[in-house]
Amino acid sequence: MLDRIIGPRRTRQFQRLLRNGKVTLLCLVLTIVVLRGNLGAGKFGTPEQDFKEIRDTFYQYRGKRTEPRRVLEELQTTIETTSSAETTNNYAEFDINKLFVDEEDDVKKNPNEPYSIGPKISDWDEQRGEWLKQNPNFPNFVNPNKPRVLLVTGSSPKPCENPVGDHYLLKSIKNKIDYCRIHGIEIFYNMALLDAEMAGFWAKLPLIRKLLLSHPEVEFLWWMDSDAMFTDMAFEVPWERYKDRNLVMHGWNEMVYDQKNWIGLNTGSFLLRNCQWSLDLIDVWAPMGPKGKIRDEAGKLLTRELKDRPVFEADDQSAMVWILASQKDRWANKVYLENHYYLHGYWGILVDRYEEMIASYHPGLGDHRWPLVTHFVGCKPCGKFGDYPVERCLKQMDRAFNFGDNQILQMYGFTHKSLASRRVKPTRNDSSNPLEVKDELGLLHPAYKAVKVSSS
Amino acid sequence: MLDRIIGPRRTRQFQRLLRNGKVTLLCLVLTIVVLRGNLGAGKFGTPEQDFKEIRDTFYQYRGKRTEPRRVLEELQTTIETTSSAETTNNYAEFDINKLFVDEEDDVKKNPNEPYSIGPKISDWDEQRGEWLKQNPNFPNFVNPNKPRVLLVTGSSPKPCENPVGDHYLLKSIKNKIDYCRIHGIEIFYNMALLDAEMAGFWAKLPLIRKLLLSHPEVEFLWWMDSDAMFTDMAFEVPWERYKDRNLVMHGWNEMVYDQKNWIGLNTGSFLLRNCQWSLDLIDVWAPMGPKGKIRDEAGKLLTRELKDRPVFEADDQSAMVWILASQKDRWANKVYLENHYYLHGYWGILVDRYEEMIASYHPGLGDHRWPLVTHFVGCKPCGKFGDYPVERCLKQMDRAFNFGDNQILQMYGFTHKSLASRRVKPTRNDSSNPLEVKDELGLLHPAYKAVKVSSS
Repeated sequence: MLDRIIGPRRTRQFQRLLRNGKVTLLCLVLTIVVLRGNLGAGKFGTPEQDFKEIRDTFYQYRGKRTEPRRVLEELQTTIETTSSAETTNNYAEFDINKLFVDEEDDVKKNPNEPYSIGPKISDWDEQRGEWLKQNPNFPNFVNPNKPRVLLVTGSSPKPCENPVGDHYLLKSIKNKIDYCRIHGIEIFYNMALLDAEMAGFWAKLPLIRKLLLSHPEVEFLWWMDSDAMFTDMAFEVPWERYKDRNLVMHGWNEMVYDQKNWIGLNTGSFLLRNCQWSLDLIDVWAPMGPKGKIRDEAGKLLTRELKDRPVFEADDQSAMVWILASQKDRWANKVYLENHYYLHGYWGILVDRYEEMIASYHPGLGDHRWPLVTHFVGCKPCGKFGDYPVERCLKQMDRAFNFGDNQILQMYGFTHKSLASRRVKPTRNDSSNPLEVKDELGLLHPAYKAVKVSSS
Repeated sequence: MLDRIIGPRRTRQFQRLLRNGKVTLLCLVLTIVVLRGNLGAGKFGTPEQDFKEIRDTFYQYRGKRTEPRRVLEELQTTIETTSSAETTNNYAEFDINKLFVDEEDDVKKNPNEPYSIGPKISDWDEQRGEWLKQNPNFPNFVNPNKPRVLLVTGSSPKPCENPVGDHYLLKSIKNKIDYCRIHGIEIFYNMALLDAEMAGFWAKLPLIRKLLLSHPEVEFLWWMDSDAMFTDMAFEVPWERYKDRNLVMHGWNEMVYDQKNWIGLNTGSFLLRNCQWSLDLIDVWAPMGPKGKIRDEAGKLLTRELKDRPVFEADDQSAMVWILASQKDRWANKVYLENHYYLHGYWGILVDRYEEMIASYHPGLGDHRWPLVTHFVGCKPCGKFGDYPVERCLKQMDRAFNFGDNQILQMYGFTHKSLASRRVKPTRNDSSNPLEVKDELGLLHPAYKAVKVSSS
């Protein structure tokens, strides 16, 4: 077999050398290891493992009177096995699809079985109330004016179909981490599809329900799309305004209840109270979601019933408009359609004005002057096609990110060189008395994060 | 000019039509708008803006006795301007490099000017102590046994050089978000290069210093590399063990102080106390970092002085080994080289054993039986080339992620179908009494997150 590698004549020469001394074999081994090339610093890594393997093979024969051919055959097998295990170290050459376990879709459930998002619960307020009483060290209010909030977002467990999609998901979650750290809000980033029937935009429903029921200490769950970014780091949601409400979405009463306009509200960023009412709403909301015939037919109904809705399968936002408009008496009194600040802000009318905002206003306003949220609806950077030109979307997402990031960086004395630039520059000289530096926006130690100090 | 679009003969026909009625012009406008294709739902978006622009051009001439040719010329200009602004909606066709503002490297500082990481501070313990006294509502201990910890990590502001790199950064930060949420730790995700001279692995030093000085309420800063993942969600760092120490790294005393082995400790995951001692250490650590001649020369020194170190520019880890070994009397008594659990766990010796761990052990151990951290040193998924085969790295990173993620999912009654699978399956039936379901690992409401309840 060695013939095939180095030719028959050299094999005979080699065999002669081998008969003459084991040192020859040792040289061969060393040559092979060196010739494998630079595999880097491998702390306990591959080069050492390889060497160990080949060395072990050698040592098996050291001192034995073994026929040289057999030694060579065994050595060659070791070399071939090690080499065939080797794949490229070059990420550009690697086909990512090799990683994906051949995963077929889940077997479709019995179509005659009606969809259920979970067993009916009718006494959640009582269950939760009892739990909170038993667990005073997990209060649902973190201070008298501030409910405990869990921000929930997420994305697919698969890499994005286009190369930059994941980079923007990464920037988006960093943006949310920054806002939530400042505002004392916890984050749940979901990458699991809990219910195969409720894929796509409907996936948030089983997730939200599961989180509400698992975290009775959470008072409000804040759902936020992965394509929405915080652009006002200083704005605190006016929780007091919603003390008698269970669902807060950006929208307009007239557009929902009068016009039934499919964009009369937005479900890309909303607040949902942890209570029985919300479970009941989810039970009414979910049935349009199951993928396939149900979702398609529901889509046709929604296009028919709602104003301006294009033709496509049912989505959670249209379903919400339809539910509120057609069951107003049941739900409206606990729903707040907020339009005094941008709980959701459509990017198209905001992103070209950032410089104007910087010139004329300041963080903390949350509204058209300095939007709390800039939401890149329709851009779909994780997919192949968006509803808008790619360049516009990505450029503006960079600008929105930097607009928000500047408010974080200014705490530390930095800012982006421009809204288009990834690079930062200092805004002040470092000080040897850093605690005397004025914290302009008051974001380093904001009041809503202060813990209550018991008077001694 | 219209000749070039539709030919000279049709132009004359068009002119005749135009002379006959404005309705002809209106039809042309509508045709152009429709022919621009499906640009999506554009809530207040591009199709409407286009139409507005073309419509406005038309209205300028409505009712005027204007030479038709001039009207057509103006209309054509409007159409051409609008069309040239259009780019692809297809992310696959878009060249991401178009986005990058032409950003040259910063002008090199005067090479004769010695590097300084910041103005010397000698009274930080006093400054910080005073601040804590003045701000009792931002205590440095969140409960008597638990210091306030800030976990710091980050990655480049540029998209990764290879398509999957950002996806793994995203999974990595989700992993950290999960651990930190459970353990009451805040996260700072950095994407800004604060000091151009301290690029690459040295970038963490200016960042760490800035954060310590800006957040006196933080007792420990936990630096963690982006290629390190939490694989024991239940393990709480034994803070009490470090009450008299200022720096905790995974490592071995003998390998650092006796052997000066460059991998005797790991700076990919370490704890640094917010105090004067740490500022002094950073002042001593930083000087090997500045890119260029200094870093290169320092690299040669480190290769010479340390055991087994390959030839490359100075890195922060080697520099730390050298500092501790050569200035032992100054630093060692406040440094804890921890090896009783994997504050950093080299992936190569862990990832093939996950199934064995699942079979034999349980979360909460943090050590070789169930490692706190699995650190993918050398894989470099954000770059072009790693030190190991790509397939092995990515497959194992998926497994490590799922191994950790299973401990999160089990709280909610789910688990990955296998360690290789992105998909999840339920582990139990949903209950209508969710609060009675046993929280096996006690991660939903862990003791270290409970707030202190004042006795009434």
